[in-house]
Amino acid sequence: MPVPAPVLYPPFNIVRLSHVVYRVKDLAKSRAFYVDLLGLQVTEENDREIYLRAMEERGHHCIKLEKAGVSEVNVLGFKLYDAPDLDKAETFFRSKAMPTAWVDHPQMGRTLKTRDPFGTPLEFYVRMERLAPIHQQYKLYSGVKPLRIDHFNMFSIDVDASVAFYNEIGFRATEYTEDAETGKCWAVWMHRKGGVHDVAFTNGRGPRLHHTAFWVGSPLHIIEFLDLMSTTGWLSSIERGPGRHGISNAFFLYIRDPDGHRIEIYNADYQTVDPDHEPIKWDLKDPQRQTLWGAPAPRSWFDEGSQFQGVEVGEPTLKAQPIVAP
Amino acid sequence: MPVPAPVLYPPFNIVRLSHVVYRVKDLAKSRAFYVDLLGLQVTEENDREIYLRAMEERGHHCIKLEKAGVSEVNVLGFKLYDAPDLDKAETFFRSKAMPTAWVDHPQMGRTLKTRDPFGTPLEFYVRMERLAPIHQQYKLYSGVKPLRIDHFNMFSIDVDASVAFYNEIGFRATEYTEDAETGKCWAVWMHRKGGVHDVAFTNGRGPRLHHTAFWVGSPLHIIEFLDLMSTTGWLSSIERGPGRHGISNAFFLYIRDPDGHRIEIYNADYQTVDPDHEPIKWDLKDPQRQTLWGAPAPRSWFDEGSQFQGVEVGEPTLKAQPIVAP
Amino acid sequence: MPVPAPVLYPPFNIVRLSHVVYRVKDLAKSRAFYVDLLGLQVTEENDREIYLRAMEERGHHCIKLEKAGVSEVNVLGFKLYDAPDLDKAETFFRSKAMPTAWVDHPQMGRTLKTRDPFGTPLEFYVRMERLAPIHQQYKLYSGVKPLRIDHFNMFSIDVDASVAFYNEIGFRATEYTEDAETGKCWAVWMHRKGGVHDVAFTNGRGPRLHHTAFWVGSPLHIIEFLDLMSTTGWLSSIERGPGRHGISNAFFLYIRDPDGHRIEIYNADYQTVDPDHEPIKWDLKDPQRQTLWGAPAPRSWFDEGSQFQGVEVGEPTLKAQPIVAP
Amino acid sequence: MPVPAPVLYPPFNIVRLSHVVYRVKDLAKSRAFYVDLLGLQVTEENDREIYLRAMEERGHHCIKLEKAGVSEVNVLGFKLYDAPDLDKAETFFRSKAMPTAWVDHPQMGRTLKTRDPFGTPLEFYVRMERLAPIHQQYKLYSGVKPLRIDHFNMFSIDVDASVAFYNEIGFRATEYTEDAETGKCWAVWMHRKGGVHDVAFTNGRGPRLHHTAFWVGSPLHIIEFLDLMSTTGWLSSIERGPGRHGISNAFFLYIRDPDGHRIEIYNADYQTVDPDHEPIKWDLKDPQRQTLWGAPAPRSWFDEGSQFQGVEVGEPTLKAQPIVAP
Repeated sequence: MPVPAPVLYPPFNIVRLSHVVYRVKDLAKSRAFYVDLLGLQVTEENDREIYLRAMEERGHHCIKLEKAGVSEVNVLGFKLYDAPDLDKAETFFRSKAMPTAWVDHPQMGRTLKTRDPFGTPLEFYVRMERLAPIHQQYKLYSGVKPLRIDHFNMFSIDVDASVAFYNEIGFRATEYTEDAETGKCWAVWMHRKGGVHDVAFTNGRGPRLHHTAFWVGSPLHIIEFLDLMSTTGWLSSIERGPGRHGISNAFFLYIRDPDGHRIEIYNADYQTVDPDHEPIKWDLKDPQRQTLWGAPAPRSWFDEGSQFQGVEVGEPTLKAQPIVAP
Repeated sequence: MPVPAPVLYPPFNIVRLSHVVYRVKDLAKSRAFYVDLLGLQVTEENDREIYLRAMEERGHHCIKLEKAGVSEVNVLGFKLYDAPDLDKAETFFRSKAMPTAWVDHPQMGRTLKTRDPFGTPLEFYVRMERLAPIHQQYKLYSGVKPLRIDHFNMFSIDVDASVAFYNEIGFRATEYTEDAETGKCWAVWMHRKGGVHDVAFTNGRGPRLHHTAFWVGSPLHIIEFLDLMSTTGWLSSIERGPGRHGISNAFFLYIRDPDGHRIEIYNADYQTVDPDHEPIKWDLKDPQRQTLWGAPAPRSWFDEGSQFQGVEVGEPTLKAQPIVAP
Repeated sequence: MPVPAPVLYPPFNIVRLSHVVYRVKDLAKSRAFYVDLLGLQVTEENDREIYLRAMEERGHHCIKLEKAGVSEVNVLGFKLYDAPDLDKAETFFRSKAMPTAWVDHPQMGRTLKTRDPFGTPLEFYVRMERLAPIHQQYKLYSGVKPLRIDHFNMFSIDVDASVAFYNEIGFRATEYTEDAETGKCWAVWMHRKGGVHDVAFTNGRGPRLHHTAFWVGSPLHIIEFLDLMSTTGWLSSIERGPGRHGISNAFFLYIRDPDGHRIEIYNADYQTVDPDHEPIKWDLKDPQRQTLWGAPAPRSWFDEGSQFQGVEVGEPTLKAQPIVAP
Repeated sequence: MPVPAPVLYPPFNIVRLSHVVYRVKDLAKSRAFYVDLLGLQVTEENDREIYLRAMEERGHHCIKLEKAGVSEVNVLGFKLYDAPDLDKAETFFRSKAMPTAWVDHPQMGRTLKTRDPFGTPLEFYVRMERLAPIHQQYKLYSGVKPLRIDHFNMFSIDVDASVAFYNEIGFRATEYTEDAETGKCWAVWMHRKGGVHDVAFTNGRGPRLHHTAFWVGSPLHIIEFLDLMSTTGWLSSIERGPGRHGISNAFFLYIRDPDGHRIEIYNADYQTVDPDHEPIKWDLKDPQRQTLWGAPAPRSWFDEGSQFQGVEVGEPTLKAQPIVAP
């Protein structure tokens, strides 16, 4: 099988993906996109930073926007289960000769900063500042009514190697795309929190962030969001969709923020908490893999992504090509 | 204004579009499409014909499928208000030098068969055999849960002329697409029954039937229908959508039956019963005209249609081109 | 049959119900209800009056709120087809010995003010000031996203007599509730515009207005509206629902404005444009008549209504009782 | 705080609730309810037993129906993480002086049968026979389109004691209802798999099973299911709803199977995977606790439940009463 068997007792316990720090050129434009359009809630802001959460989240933020001269991603954040997991994580990353550093983060306390073997900047914490629930304050719901951050999708120059590494730290594969000719993985979806993925890897120039996804409650919210985007000046920010993914079975929409960072709006995959949950295999040339209804993604969707701050981007080893819209 | 003012007192009173007779090559395949997939209800059938109605209709049929050697359309049917309207209609069509004939139709009684000036075969009746309501027999709902026939869309070689004629018999324009260069209409939507249209005309080789549309209750029914089509062998029958039309504001999907006849699944336009309801103008080059969210229709959608039985097809006079998907 | 055959050629042509003038004690509170909560759009306002329209309406208003010392209804308004219909209406009402008067209304021009035989104040006009479309300005949609006014429901002391009168002026019965013991109608639904009703009559102390209904696009909008009402201080304004009506097959919710005027939120009945559309009969004791799912309405729903300004209320002649929630 | 702090390292690792064995008097009637009406899929059956799974489940069954002379519950099943967890579970239950036994189950292999301190029969296994995915075979979806088993709700004679026990084995409280007078818990919701609950406890005669819940994809599926139930002879099986729970924020419907076993249809609570997720407190007298929109549950909902086979039922110690519909 092209995806490795799950590691039931990983070296440290990751609960879920947690947050991303986007570096953006124009904080006001980004605020218009994430707050006024998308409907994320501001939890803290000043003239250099905006912190955002979705409607059912109680952590301080799932997105931090930080003013910068370049459109890029500073770091991907993950929540650990318990305080000792932080030290176990440090031990693990050091054993892999990855750089590690501790910072005392204002909202997350003791935080481990490190990298995966491809250079992706990661940070781990145990407890982020907790806020009062707002999921039943229905007057606050707006835009696409985002409920929670769902996953990161990353370009990888070697998906098999990415999967091997993330598998070792406890992520379990749920679906994967195989290149029939080489037998190698072209894309893999992996989870910790019991859905189809916390992280996914797609073959391409990397490491880069392909997108961050938000879970919403209904396909109707996505349809109404498209109506809103297309009549409030955001028409050109719609990149792909709506549609049903073959992989994950989720109803989706891809949009681009003012810096080009890609956001997926994602409605409802399925439960994967069973440790013996078998991954589903798809063929790279199956037209229903991307969209169950047959429509291929546009070229931009395969080519464009967000660079990580200070990280060099390389070429993928696998040259197999997906089906692309003309 | 490029669309004529409505005629408040037309020569005869058309209630609404009523039915279409499709000629199909393989009755079993068509039955699989219209009954097993789409969810229309069989009201009568034999080895040469199938009669179908949608869930809230009480007339005997909105589609008649008839076995034939060629895929084509036999006739478009319209319901008149009262018995005297039949004779008034005959008088009108004769005054226009159109051929007229009376038939005694098994389900519609005295029926006027005639043509519009472009050769489109039409039939008019007052009362079709009525069936018991089934709209609250929810166990019968299946497929896309079609509620009622909504409209016909026809290719016309001269949209302005088509509009002038249908306006004269009481159809009122609700929206139209103008070719900015010539100031001529490229497409027009016209109604009798109080929605955006009973009939629409699109510039192209004609006369041909572009599509017949069915009204459904929710965008979710369309999304679930796409899931069904794409996992039961009908993937290649999906032609365009789903999306929100700029024109009509309806949520739509276009599919093709086994003979290539195009069916639109249509959810919710708006009420237009006011005789002073102002038509809305769109520019042919406006990308939101076709789909509010910006996605253009594929080439097949502009080129392909169903011929009328025994009617020659001509070239359109207007050469302006819409935006087409690459 | 307890409901009379439709009059195909009524003495004047009513297009549809149009508007209601509510007299309210606290204009600010009513504005909070109709605008901030419900999502109707203000088209004009001053310190004594607020004019409102729903999202797909182009007429100046469907509700006028007017500051008053008493919570009551000033008048129910209907749109006529053409200018001559005004004079025909005057002739008709005079022939019935009803009072008639002409006013020059700022938004409706020449307007006929009169009464039905039970005293209900009515006004008829041909053309109301027209406003630009806003149905595709999706940023304006809020609250329950009301699309258009749908119908009035009135308490009548003699439903059979009300039906006879409204039938004479062209309203056609679509469904009715019969009291099995007396064979008399307990409630009747009648339309002009092609849905289940423009007006309905329910046995009770009358004449009073039972409710005004607004059409919305999805049951989900009603569910989300209930979430909003119940978390923004309007919990006690929820009177009945949500549910599916047996009669009309619509998904419904009943709420009460700050003066107690009852508003129905109504999603999707069915098309009734055929003049030979057969009315559906229900038995007063059928538990699925009120709600298809079996839940009876509360006592208040049967007892409470809005009085018409200056009109005396009488007792119903029919004493049959509906099923009421304990 | 009335609910105990979560135990981060429980004595054995429970993944999630898994299945229930219902004893039913008429297997054909139960099949009509669970398969033909509800839409669960038969995975195996003979003349004494029927095994069922929901659309996204890959385990052999979530409900087993077994023919019996009495309507009751045989056992509640839970899935453990890894083989050693079975022995750890045995050690734990023995340490609590609970009876334990091993059976070799045809679909679950080595299975531990035991009881909780109140007598509730429980069984634990690690791996149930796995079946091929069917979640994208959309032609199989019917009824309410049940996606997966979500939770058990049990009557307990001492909710605080139940919570203390289930907390010890790793269940974490997410919401709870406090009796303000005594400061004791009247009901508590506890999870393992990352939603609002795998198990809940409600004050009442116990131990009894209050209901088993199934997750569905949309409130619209519940509304359409009510339309189906009420027009196919199942009207009297509707007990409560639809509505939005205050607690859990889920959209719900309660129905009763032919033996009176209660099934909840449940749409969408929220994610609770964070080990520091704070429980939400509700007051027993808060009318929005049961239903956010204010409607209280009927008496039957508080009084009736399914007995466990061979287990005596006792009276609750807490006498506080909830708000009940008149």
